[in-house]
Amino acid sequence: MSRKKQTINTDITSSRRDFLKSSIAAGGALVAGSAAARAESDPAITQVQDWARYLGDGVDAAPYGKPSEYEKHVIRRSVPWLTASTESSINFTPLHELDGIITPNGVCFERHHGGVAEVEPDKYRLMINGLVEKQLVFTMEDLMRFPRKNQINFLECAANSGMEWRGAQLNGCQFTHGMVHNVMYTGVPLRYLLEEAGLKTNAKWIMPEGGDSSGMNRSVPLFKALDDCLIAFKMNGEALRPEQGYPARLVVPGWEGNMWVKWIRRIEVGDMPWHAREETSKYTDLMENGKARRFTWEMDAKSVITNPSPQAPIKHKKGPTVLTGLAWSGRGTIPRVDITLDGGRNWHKARMDGPSLEKSLHRFYYEFDWNGEPLLLQSRAIDSTGYIQPTKDELRAARGVNSIYHNNGIQTWHVKKTGEVENVEVS
Amino acid sequence: MSRKKQTINTDITSSRRDFLKSSIAAGGALVAGSAAARAESDPAITQVQDWARYLGDGVDAAPYGKPSEYEKHVIRRSVPWLTASTESSINFTPLHELDGIITPNGVCFERHHGGVAEVEPDKYRLMINGLVEKQLVFTMEDLMRFPRKNQINFLECAANSGMEWRGAQLNGCQFTHGMVHNVMYTGVPLRYLLEEAGLKTNAKWIMPEGGDSSGMNRSVPLFKALDDCLIAFKMNGEALRPEQGYPARLVVPGWEGNMWVKWIRRIEVGDMPWHAREETSKYTDLMENGKARRFTWEMDAKSVITNPSPQAPIKHKKGPTVLTGLAWSGRGTIPRVDITLDGGRNWHKARMDGPSLEKSLHRFYYEFDWNGEPLLLQSRAIDSTGYIQPTKDELRAARGVNSIYHNNGIQTWHVKKTGEVENVEVS
Repeated sequence: MSRKKQTINTDITSSRRDFLKSSIAAGGALVAGSAAARAESDPAITQVQDWARYLGDGVDAAPYGKPSEYEKHVIRRSVPWLTASTESSINFTPLHELDGIITPNGVCFERHHGGVAEVEPDKYRLMINGLVEKQLVFTMEDLMRFPRKNQINFLECAANSGMEWRGAQLNGCQFTHGMVHNVMYTGVPLRYLLEEAGLKTNAKWIMPEGGDSSGMNRSVPLFKALDDCLIAFKMNGEALRPEQGYPARLVVPGWEGNMWVKWIRRIEVGDMPWHAREETSKYTDLMENGKARRFTWEMDAKSVITNPSPQAPIKHKKGPTVLTGLAWSGRGTIPRVDITLDGGRNWHKARMDGPSLEKSLHRFYYEFDWNGEPLLLQSRAIDSTGYIQPTKDELRAARGVNSIYHNNGIQTWHVKKTGEVENVEVS
Repeated sequence: MSRKKQTINTDITSSRRDFLKSSIAAGGALVAGSAAARAESDPAITQVQDWARYLGDGVDAAPYGKPSEYEKHVIRRSVPWLTASTESSINFTPLHELDGIITPNGVCFERHHGGVAEVEPDKYRLMINGLVEKQLVFTMEDLMRFPRKNQINFLECAANSGMEWRGAQLNGCQFTHGMVHNVMYTGVPLRYLLEEAGLKTNAKWIMPEGGDSSGMNRSVPLFKALDDCLIAFKMNGEALRPEQGYPARLVVPGWEGNMWVKWIRRIEVGDMPWHAREETSKYTDLMENGKARRFTWEMDAKSVITNPSPQAPIKHKKGPTVLTGLAWSGRGTIPRVDITLDGGRNWHKARMDGPSLEKSLHRFYYEFDWNGEPLLLQSRAIDSTGYIQPTKDELRAARGVNSIYHNNGIQTWHVKKTGEVENVEVS
């Protein structure tokens, strides 16, 4: 076994193009240095572990499996002071603990207005009424007889990052950006159900209504309802989770999460919007001049570095370091994400990895050789329409700081010499 | 509300091309007939349900969520008589309860040889030794400093459908085809780790070895190890489940599941295969002449209709019916699946839906108007190399019935007038 000191390749940042061809092995040299030294003295290697000595649980132990005991910290977390009650509240996806683009069902963030409705599937009904030729009521079994589609889509609450309008507040991407998740939905295109009911010629809007105690309702323009909306009954292959609308929810790809009505029980077809509470008093964007933007449905392109981040500090002193994060756009795909390590002075192209799907989270990586000095990390998403994610200051100049919605500004993390990370702002 | 009798479109099968354009609404007409009648008399509509009257659980109720109480039947199931102990045994994915292409982590089938190793991540080590320039030992933190990739891949046990070699045996696609699952893996390309260790010029094979009490080991040719193999630590975004190799497993896309060594603790590099127990006594295919095929790593193209199937009968009398299933190939993608309703006399092109990814499950649908008469359902996958899934009889003619491995023959389901479904064979 060679104990020769390895030289550290500091040239990764400038050799992005051939990264996957040649520089990875060199980039890993510091890792290998300690890995080589470890081989002969590490008690985790020289001693036989219990799990290699004794039989483990058999196949009947967990008919529905769960995560390892060592992953108990990977959970949704709420912020008690944000809301007055837990039934009309929010919790957050632990983005810093995840990788890839699929959010596992167990940690998809929740936003309720009347708590989790525990709907009995046998008693579930979906009514379509209003400006239709025939009023219809579907059971789950009826819905299962229509053709289905599968789509991986992100769902982002309009209030995601909302606490950051007036400055850096929450220390962790789980809290600043965790009101987003991304799963594969299976459902019936809403268009098929509306066509089945027969739209009257003056039909222009629909109003999906939830079966929970809040009776959540929103106005959705017909063009969107007929485009890519689903009445979904599966997420990541299995039935929707109760907190995500079991047994059926509306999927409105790329648009704000509040419109994705859960436990959906009725769709009224009309010729005008309903001006419901959640599209007037709430989910409008109050501007500096006292007027409010409304019907701001589409989610603008956004990104966040999930690692390193305040809840996921760097644990080594220097050398090869993996930076990773998520980017998404309500308008299409994310062909490009730029990364800066120095608060915006120099930008580098991130490596996109995994499927690039419409209105879906995208995973990016930037591998670099950390010199152990402080960093100011930012990511900037550019979507398939050419839209470039703005800075928070650019957003404030355009919209003021009165709203809590639609903050897609660039996030900054300050990495200290210790590897600890803080939520900060740079101007 | 119109109560006019709807006419039933019986022309769906011959209008596959414009299915998504026009015939869906017509295809759903029978559904709509009952749906329209239901609107005025259904107590599930005329009475307010409890879930609409009272607040439900708040956001702190389930930091890591779980399925609805009404989905308790959606579990992995084992077949007690198949094996002598549960620690060296199998359970099966409930394919008939799932949709889309992602298998949720909780129901991914398990195959253990010494039970579930409960590995402490802090004490996890991965050694690379043998024909390398420098022997290395990696911790989890070391692995997290190498570049990562994300891949959605199916994992199929070589023994999947193995009980069917001698005739129809098990009544349910969970049991006949449930030793397969499909998740998004995140991991370090094995190539980067091998290059880090430095391969000697005579290196031709690797032997991954598991950290569990069975010390599972297999020979993998170096060309595959350097191609698309991963040392994976995430599945569907979160940490690997204990039963799937937490904290790290080998991913060998398209090749038989036994090679995907779980709890991987060592990779030896050599110049010849090791002829381990699991590639000689087991996981070889005994032919009629007493000789055995070996190193049959690549999984041939295969498909199965998941609904209707014995565990998922048709519940309506006749009319619009959704047939769906899964297809996959260890050699690439599945551009086409054919469906027959009459035991192979007439074939129809299925509708593929969802992402078509290399060495991944594919979802197909075939919507038809059931006349209430018995059916003989089959699906036939054609992969991107042009390979056509064979019949069971064709397989038996080529290989005899002594093996339990690599049975990718066409499955037949007999649908009775009652809607019940049976596992049968047709010649």
